[in-house]
Amino acid sequence: MPEQDNAQARGQAVTLGELGESGILREIFARLGPGREATSAEVGPGDDAAVHDISGPVIATTDAMVRGRDWLDKWSTGHDVGVKVVTQNLADISAMGGVPTGILVTLIAPSDLSVSWAMDFTEGLSRACQAAGVSVLGGDLSSSLGEVMVSVTALGVLTEHGTVLRSGARPGDVLAVSGPLGRSAAGWDLLRRSDAGWWPPESEAAVAADWVGFHCAPSVDFTQGSLAAKHGARAMLDVSDGLGRDAQRIAEVSQVDIDLDESSIQAMASRFADVLGSQAALSHVLSGGEEHELLATFADTTTVPLGWTVIGSVRSVQQASDGDQRIPTVYWEGKPLENLGWDHFESPAV
Amino acid sequence: MPEQDNAQARGQAVTLGELGESGILREIFARLGPGREATSAEVGPGDDAAVHDISGPVIATTDAMVRGRDWLDKWSTGHDVGVKVVTQNLADISAMGGVPTGILVTLIAPSDLSVSWAMDFTEGLSRACQAAGVSVLGGDLSSSLGEVMVSVTALGVLTEHGTVLRSGARPGDVLAVSGPLGRSAAGWDLLRRSDAGWWPPESEAAVAADWVGFHCAPSVDFTQGSLAAKHGARAMLDVSDGLGRDAQRIAEVSQVDIDLDESSIQAMASRFADVLGSQAALSHVLSGGEEHELLATFADTTTVPLGWTVIGSVRSVQQASDGDQRIPTVYWEGKPLENLGWDHFESPAV
Repeated sequence: MPEQDNAQARGQAVTLGELGESGILREIFARLGPGREATSAEVGPGDDAAVHDISGPVIATTDAMVRGRDWLDKWSTGHDVGVKVVTQNLADISAMGGVPTGILVTLIAPSDLSVSWAMDFTEGLSRACQAAGVSVLGGDLSSSLGEVMVSVTALGVLTEHGTVLRSGARPGDVLAVSGPLGRSAAGWDLLRRSDAGWWPPESEAAVAADWVGFHCAPSVDFTQGSLAAKHGARAMLDVSDGLGRDAQRIAEVSQVDIDLDESSIQAMASRFADVLGSQAALSHVLSGGEEHELLATFADTTTVPLGWTVIGSVRSVQQASDGDQRIPTVYWEGKPLENLGWDHFESPAV
Repeated sequence: MPEQDNAQARGQAVTLGELGESGILREIFARLGPGREATSAEVGPGDDAAVHDISGPVIATTDAMVRGRDWLDKWSTGHDVGVKVVTQNLADISAMGGVPTGILVTLIAPSDLSVSWAMDFTEGLSRACQAAGVSVLGGDLSSSLGEVMVSVTALGVLTEHGTVLRSGARPGDVLAVSGPLGRSAAGWDLLRRSDAGWWPPESEAAVAADWVGFHCAPSVDFTQGSLAAKHGARAMLDVSDGLGRDAQRIAEVSQVDIDLDESSIQAMASRFADVLGSQAALSHVLSGGEEHELLATFADTTTVPLGWTVIGSVRSVQQASDGDQRIPTVYWEGKPLENLGWDHFESPAV
């Protein structure tokens, strides 16, 4: 490749192996801008561990991505992957009602990974953290035999409104979502169709590009979780494995049934239907993962935060005709919702 | 393999793909015993994120292991890998002067990984955490194309004695280590020799097995870091990449020279020399990684904690004969120490 020849001609290392561990770390540190304002007690990357000067209980979560499973290089840049792995993790902090404050990042890659990919990844990660006011506290760099994996652990704090678990939904609650669902799945669908030679007409190209951008490098508002807690959200999670599967999680741990509202969900699907057809559109809204918008229940519609959309309601678990208790279920058009979503070990790769 | 046939005959899933994500998580949760005593504010695995009820600044670190690079299945069991990845991370918390309190764990593996390996790993990890009084707060399970990777993020708190960075060494300090060095490298050396058909005579077999055990599943005392802080340690880290390389890290960030003490290091090497020869023995003590004992400087020998061994001294960076300032250096027998240790991207795999 000509770029590599040029880089080598200029004496620059083009692979991680050529640059070496200390060289890689130097290049990474140069790309980590300030996130959250650091206190004097704070210790960042470079020692055995970071010291993160936050008070009170700490919220912690971790989520990884694997090349060829969670992203494809033909569709996503290193920058995209950096943004996406940060978004996945910060959304989980937000989904507890928390405010994200810091991350640790792990990159596991073979020696022949290009330095430019690693730096592009670092810049995406750093930019996403800066936008969210979050510090990059430290991380780990390890070598693999060939696969590329990135992993982030996010830390955060609670506000005075406390934690919102998945288990607090009660009969009579309304179910609401913090933003539109289906964008990530629509973007993925478009990438697959474009591989097959199809792309929407000029009039729809801009919105299609937005969906592809959201699929590859999603961005959501991480302040919505603490806002929902302030509004008295009773159960909450972020939509990472599809509305059906994630609503089912709330139903099971809260021991309730959930009815999805057909008209609001069809309205959400309509923006995709014009480009991708109505069947794909509905499937993207009901089952599409990696959305990272928040799904929460509230006592009634008056307490739902501004900008959220009510998409369902919560009721007691139905009794079977023989009097037996049924298992908690998500209903669509009065029937249990099928094809709920994503299983890491049973689903095919991207 | 007969075990697999038996498991299949009993209708048990033998691979992660057969068991599926929710089945795997159920089996993992069943193996996580209580670590640290949980408060009512604590939220463990199963929600979007964990809530870890610790007060004050949080110490955080992360470290990963890759099959074929950081362990070989022919030498290490899943249980060993679970113990080792916990030890690596808790040692980093201890090396800041902190007390480890909780971990998050990531397992990235292909669908055809055996369930028994994953459960063995979980049990090793859980047992190491329980021994240290540390909680398993949560984690992530992702699928790879073939490689197996495990990653842990550890969290902890500081005592009233505060943080010990790498940068606090001062001329006149003594350098001390919390336990013997070289055991992990001696174990690795023995595994390589045993692959070549050699094993020490009966009289030395027990100590050899101890070193192999330490290499595969190291165990150190994680209370030594806060003890060292109480004793006024000025600079500290854990020996993860070899004494030479890790002492060099203290030297560079503290801007000091370090003289290693020949007699105490030769004494440490003597226990390996009888079994492995004097050249290999000295190399294991000076350059062997994955020891996880703590290396620290103290103002004088009277403040070194009981059980620690003084192995060197700290002085100002030497001036060159032309008056130029030399770079901070670790000296052995009056000369700069060569062959400092391990580089993740330049060193060969295990």
